[in-house]
Amino acid sequence: MSLTCAKVQEKTVSVGDYLWLRLQELGVRHVFGVPGDFNLGMLEQLLKQPGLTWVGCCNELNAAYAADGYARLKGIAALATAYGVGELSAVNGLAGAYAERVPVVAITGAPPLSHMQRRSWIHHTLGDGEYGNTLASIAPFTAARAVLTQANAAMEIDRVLRTCLRERRPVYLQLPTDVCFQQVPAPVAPLETEAAVSDRASLCALLEELVPRLRGARRSVLLVDSDAQRFGLGPQVVALAESAGIPIASLGSGRGLLDEAHGAFLGFYGGRLSDPYVREWVDGADCVVGLSTRFMDLNTHSFTQRLEPSRFVDLQSTTAALGRAESPWLPSLYGGLVLGEVLEALREAVGSRKRQDFVPRSLRLRSQAASRTAAPAARSEGPLTHAQLWPALSALLEPEDVLVVEAGSPMVGFASAQLPRGASWVAQPLWCSIGYTLPAVLGTSLAAPERRQLLFIGDGSFLMTAQELSTLLHLKLKPLVFLLNNAGYTVERLIVGPRSVYNDIPKWNYPAICDALGTPGQALTLLIEKPEQLAPVLAEAVRAQQEGRLVFVEVRLAPLDAPAGLAQLGASVFSLSYREDSGLPRP
Amino acid sequence: MSLTCAKVQEKTVSVGDYLWLRLQELGVRHVFGVPGDFNLGMLEQLLKQPGLTWVGCCNELNAAYAADGYARLKGIAALATAYGVGELSAVNGLAGAYAERVPVVAITGAPPLSHMQRRSWIHHTLGDGEYGNTLASIAPFTAARAVLTQANAAMEIDRVLRTCLRERRPVYLQLPTDVCFQQVPAPVAPLETEAAVSDRASLCALLEELVPRLRGARRSVLLVDSDAQRFGLGPQVVALAESAGIPIASLGSGRGLLDEAHGAFLGFYGGRLSDPYVREWVDGADCVVGLSTRFMDLNTHSFTQRLEPSRFVDLQSTTAALGRAESPWLPSLYGGLVLGEVLEALREAVGSRKRQDFVPRSLRLRSQAASRTAAPAARSEGPLTHAQLWPALSALLEPEDVLVVEAGSPMVGFASAQLPRGASWVAQPLWCSIGYTLPAVLGTSLAAPERRQLLFIGDGSFLMTAQELSTLLHLKLKPLVFLLNNAGYTVERLIVGPRSVYNDIPKWNYPAICDALGTPGQALTLLIEKPEQLAPVLAEAVRAQQEGRLVFVEVRLAPLDAPAGLAQLGASVFSLSYREDSGLPRP
Repeated sequence: MSLTCAKVQEKTVSVGDYLWLRLQELGVRHVFGVPGDFNLGMLEQLLKQPGLTWVGCCNELNAAYAADGYARLKGIAALATAYGVGELSAVNGLAGAYAERVPVVAITGAPPLSHMQRRSWIHHTLGDGEYGNTLASIAPFTAARAVLTQANAAMEIDRVLRTCLRERRPVYLQLPTDVCFQQVPAPVAPLETEAAVSDRASLCALLEELVPRLRGARRSVLLVDSDAQRFGLGPQVVALAESAGIPIASLGSGRGLLDEAHGAFLGFYGGRLSDPYVREWVDGADCVVGLSTRFMDLNTHSFTQRLEPSRFVDLQSTTAALGRAESPWLPSLYGGLVLGEVLEALREAVGSRKRQDFVPRSLRLRSQAASRTAAPAARSEGPLTHAQLWPALSALLEPEDVLVVEAGSPMVGFASAQLPRGASWVAQPLWCSIGYTLPAVLGTSLAAPERRQLLFIGDGSFLMTAQELSTLLHLKLKPLVFLLNNAGYTVERLIVGPRSVYNDIPKWNYPAICDALGTPGQALTLLIEKPEQLAPVLAEAVRAQQEGRLVFVEVRLAPLDAPAGLAQLGASVFSLSYREDSGLPRP
Repeated sequence: MSLTCAKVQEKTVSVGDYLWLRLQELGVRHVFGVPGDFNLGMLEQLLKQPGLTWVGCCNELNAAYAADGYARLKGIAALATAYGVGELSAVNGLAGAYAERVPVVAITGAPPLSHMQRRSWIHHTLGDGEYGNTLASIAPFTAARAVLTQANAAMEIDRVLRTCLRERRPVYLQLPTDVCFQQVPAPVAPLETEAAVSDRASLCALLEELVPRLRGARRSVLLVDSDAQRFGLGPQVVALAESAGIPIASLGSGRGLLDEAHGAFLGFYGGRLSDPYVREWVDGADCVVGLSTRFMDLNTHSFTQRLEPSRFVDLQSTTAALGRAESPWLPSLYGGLVLGEVLEALREAVGSRKRQDFVPRSLRLRSQAASRTAAPAARSEGPLTHAQLWPALSALLEPEDVLVVEAGSPMVGFASAQLPRGASWVAQPLWCSIGYTLPAVLGTSLAAPERRQLLFIGDGSFLMTAQELSTLLHLKLKPLVFLLNNAGYTVERLIVGPRSVYNDIPKWNYPAICDALGTPGQALTLLIEKPEQLAPVLAEAVRAQQEGRLVFVEVRLAPLDAPAGLAQLGASVFSLSYREDSGLPRP
């Protein structure tokens, strides 16, 4: 009897090509990074892929931020750096993507595997034959990692990419120079990226406990946070809310999940400083269903949320915990779930129910606006203030805009705005790494070139990553940039040291920088420093951007002026960190 | 009988002040960093120390590089960042300091210990209650670490600082916001920083074996590398060489240890591509004493050194390994040593001996120069070349200059130069992180304001950290900057991809950048693109720098032109990494 084997797959590709092919399959069209001694081979392989474009960045942290921005809109991004010096410059960028759940594939070109195995002493290492330390350094901020070899490459690339998509978190692949040219069987089928399926028994048991609660609740609410958005669950959340008649509240960090004009959107919940209407509703609800909520200092004004544990249902991406009145500190626990499935199953099981009696945020905002007396004519003396700026910027926003919003004044400045339908909100509400947004808008601009891109950044943040403006100019991208110039770190000044020298930064000539990093006159640079300049300059900025120019608007503000809310945020961070009697200088 | 206790120390200081006092004791006068939510308290404490000056940098990687530069000249430096976003941006800078043995004290302002212990979810973390991951990420690149508490602060600060100085490597202190104001006993005595002492038996046994070898050798050589310089052993090495009549050769990475005009300096050894005279001497010596040598790819032209193991004596900072003819692969091993003591003991034990018969590098260079026919008049057509540039730059150098020299063209460009007496050579021959030097010259300028500072940097490197130029201007520092503009990463072009797009960078207007980041006209910007401009522009640059201006000289060079040696280096890296038949585009 002879054993008949299936014909062995004969077509082979190099390991580098295998990786580039898989990434294209998943939607990657641009690769961000910096060349270095040990990634040149894989970059040559990249250049031969007609579906991929190399985007050289000024440094690796900037490249990681750009990849993060790209992944927010495309669902995945790739970052290519060199071993040691390159990849370690990007650690903060990967950590931010991990915290905010953004799927970035970090690829490091490493020295040849033959030398790593021999523990050769090579530059870009510590010179001690040790090749595990950079991986160890990056490990806490990646969901999966592999050092590729010819033998493991196909399996490990597939495993790591699958984890990236399932966990929506960065992953790390180390590709040695010799391995990138070794041959492996070409992919025969597209990467299996189906989401995992919920454990049926667990899902049924959860529904059995949760559905009666939701049906029995006189007042309930879905409370959303950022991860629900990163997992693309907006449509399921809205469908459940509409069908079950439940309003949706959002933590401040959850912004961007849904159309803020939607009739089910109750508003933002954030503990002590919430909109009182939302706070009253949420704190008084019989059942609060948290969807991937993370209650942290900034989205709760230092842990001032007052959610009754017995009425709180905590649905996370794979688990559920239902508070119980009889034992508030021992909730019912369910595992093995997939949140998207849970939402759909809930919608079906709860069924169509009468809409609860609440006033959506859009209506409240409208009636507030109507009840306001006609605004007094803008003061024409004195400097521009944040109080004048943010309503004017909010009025600029249009459907489908991509808003890239720095931590600090910009994120807080838009608190009272209603984002238009289809707008994307790209921000780091948890990680809050300043400097993130300038490179991020490079990524979002390439990911969605058909959409208008708006960047809101402070001068202290711009300082961190400023050179990436040159890549935007070089690639002829045309975001509408608002730089808030208040001569330093005002977000810090409102915590400690309003006049301390460490919160000041050097004075830059921003229009000259735009000219120096691009073609002179390529960007239109505008200045707003007085209230009466606001309307005409904004109109000019919008027009010029539509006509195809990168527009850079410098907005000068007083060092201690800030949007309403930033002072409260500063006070929250202060009280979390320091004692009132510490004698520290406060605003 | 009553127990009489020593009077308990009564004076207390805050933990933050304890740290700042200790750092001042060790010579720190400037602290580099970026403010952030969790380090404002310790920065306020710093501002109250009359002996300390805060140096705010544009971002944390730049600050780490600046601290590295400072520590090279001052023997120690301090870096202050904020938790998560700040410290993780500096990882590459610390890794470089670790590889190159530079003592940088990295201080992170962390969230309050009370919240860390409670595992609160706070911004600048992953939002999961985990507070060990940033420390884990930094751990591979620091020699000692501590999370400070009131109870451990005094002991741990002292231990970690002592390790920093003894190991000449970065260390890490995490200072929570609440701990920084807690009181601890004030230091009663200066920090004990005595170097460890050699184990007497080990030292005696080593001398017993090594001294006869040195006395019996017909031809011997001391072969030095960078760590000997970082441990400040230049004087001991020279004293041993002079007394025992032995020449000193240096690996390329060991540059800066000694006065290159010294009569004991034989020249640079680097395997296949060494100066043939040096190679012949070293490879033919009966006894080669390596002083902290690390043979890696770049300083050996891909491991082409041919040192007979039985004749090689490997003296490292705490160990010795003496090759033996009878068992070349099993050397005699000695531990528990202190290299400085070993050198002094050797000098005494070997005694004063006749100088071996060798020609020092300075004499060989002089006779080469004399035998050269008068140089032809510089071509006045065509572009400037590296062959013309480096001799002219070398001729500028003066005693006591601080040379901050980027990896790539600049480091190779000076290969044939003789550094003047007392010059400092600040470079990363092992870690080779491009972008290092611009912030490093900020550090060296503050560390040695009385000395002339010269920066040699490529345009691809400048791109990485360019914004730090603004700090140099803001602080009115005045290095003489040479920016080599060849439109990209020529060091990479000579490995792979001479015309590949990933090795190109956007075109910048450097004079405009100098004006935009400082006061217009503050820096003198000059251009050299033709051979005949070289002499007059360099003369003007030197004069203007002497008169107190930051001078920025842009030197335009062809993208594929490079100093002699860089093509060989590129070929070495290529052959290490790729196969000749890989089909990769080569210069």
